[in-house]
Amino acid sequence: MTSGLRPWKLLGSREIFVVPRRLSVSTHTVELPDGRRYEPYYRVDLADQAWVAATAEDGRFICQRQYKHGPERIALTLPGGIVDPGEEPLAAARRELLEETGYECRDWRHLGAFCRNNNQRCGEEHFFLASGGVWKQEPDPSTNLEEIKTVLMTRDELARAAANGEVPVLGHLAGILMALRRPAPEAGE
Amino acid sequence: MTSGLRPWKLLGSREIFVVPRRLSVSTHTVELPDGRRYEPYYRVDLADQAWVAATAEDGRFICQRQYKHGPERIALTLPGGIVDPGEEPLAAARRELLEETGYECRDWRHLGAFCRNNNQRCGEEHFFLASGGVWKQEPDPSTNLEEIKTVLMTRDELARAAANGEVPVLGHLAGILMALRRPAPEAGE
Repeated sequence: MTSGLRPWKLLGSREIFVVPRRLSVSTHTVELPDGRRYEPYYRVDLADQAWVAATAEDGRFICQRQYKHGPERIALTLPGGIVDPGEEPLAAARRELLEETGYECRDWRHLGAFCRNNNQRCGEEHFFLASGGVWKQEPDPSTNLEEIKTVLMTRDELARAAANGEVPVLGHLAGILMALRRPAPEAGE
Repeated sequence: MTSGLRPWKLLGSREIFVVPRRLSVSTHTVELPDGRRYEPYYRVDLADQAWVAATAEDGRFICQRQYKHGPERIALTLPGGIVDPGEEPLAAARRELLEETGYECRDWRHLGAFCRNNNQRCGEEHFFLASGGVWKQEPDPSTNLEEIKTVLMTRDELARAAANGEVPVLGHLAGILMALRRPAPEAGE
């Protein structure tokens, strides 16, 4: 980094509110590059999630429609969900894809991890691109509160749905737009 | 919506932790479509933000590099910030663009609003596309803790930076990818 910009220093942190296994709020004491001390800078910790933009063997994207209580509406989403404690994000994405849609993919690529809020962090989301999806089993609805419908969509249909506001959550939107920037997998890839 | 999917009903909510003007945590009691009652479903409320993918008159994007404490690193970001109470998101984006970069844009378009987390919501982010940016004044650093460097980037440079992991926050990434899907403004537009 040649920008000359310097990071802040974290001098200390204190948890001020906790719901075990769900969320916590902390206050950070930070030192800015000019030496000023600033507190409290709030941090919110929430479960990390892993999402996959997965294509079936015919090249269509394996997507979902479901009610989500964050945006409080029916949403178009990518398969995925919470990364369990000690679980690798890739393992979480594979597990959720199979549980939620019944599909397994052959080829997986990590697209990156991104935090949800530039100030309070609010946890991270991991994104994967997967191809060669084959339907293996009936989805297992027991692990979700939501009723989930799997929908197979062409690239054009997915691009149109994203542009039309059918994807009301930042992470799903970002994952879809990252996938649409990649070339389509070759037939049989 | 012809999916047959039904929304949840919010039966009640209770605030369980508040930092005035910063954040709050609530528990929701919801009724699922099959009649089951579920509680507590946690909701986190945080300030909404507004961001703008703005181009200067030469077509380059007006971006920023700064340390952000959410991802705890130097980040490439869009101009923008918190929507003040009672402020319109468009007014917030215009104000922040001018304060942070010194630029004013002529043509503004709303790209949508998206929540940060599909379960806990965590507030919303509004996105705008703006063009015809003209430099008006020195940036005003007094309203930010961060030291911000304005950087002008071509579409190709911005696309490469996003693909290379220089944008570690979901909202900024989504805003940049939405902007890159739009055609470049005509010269002088």
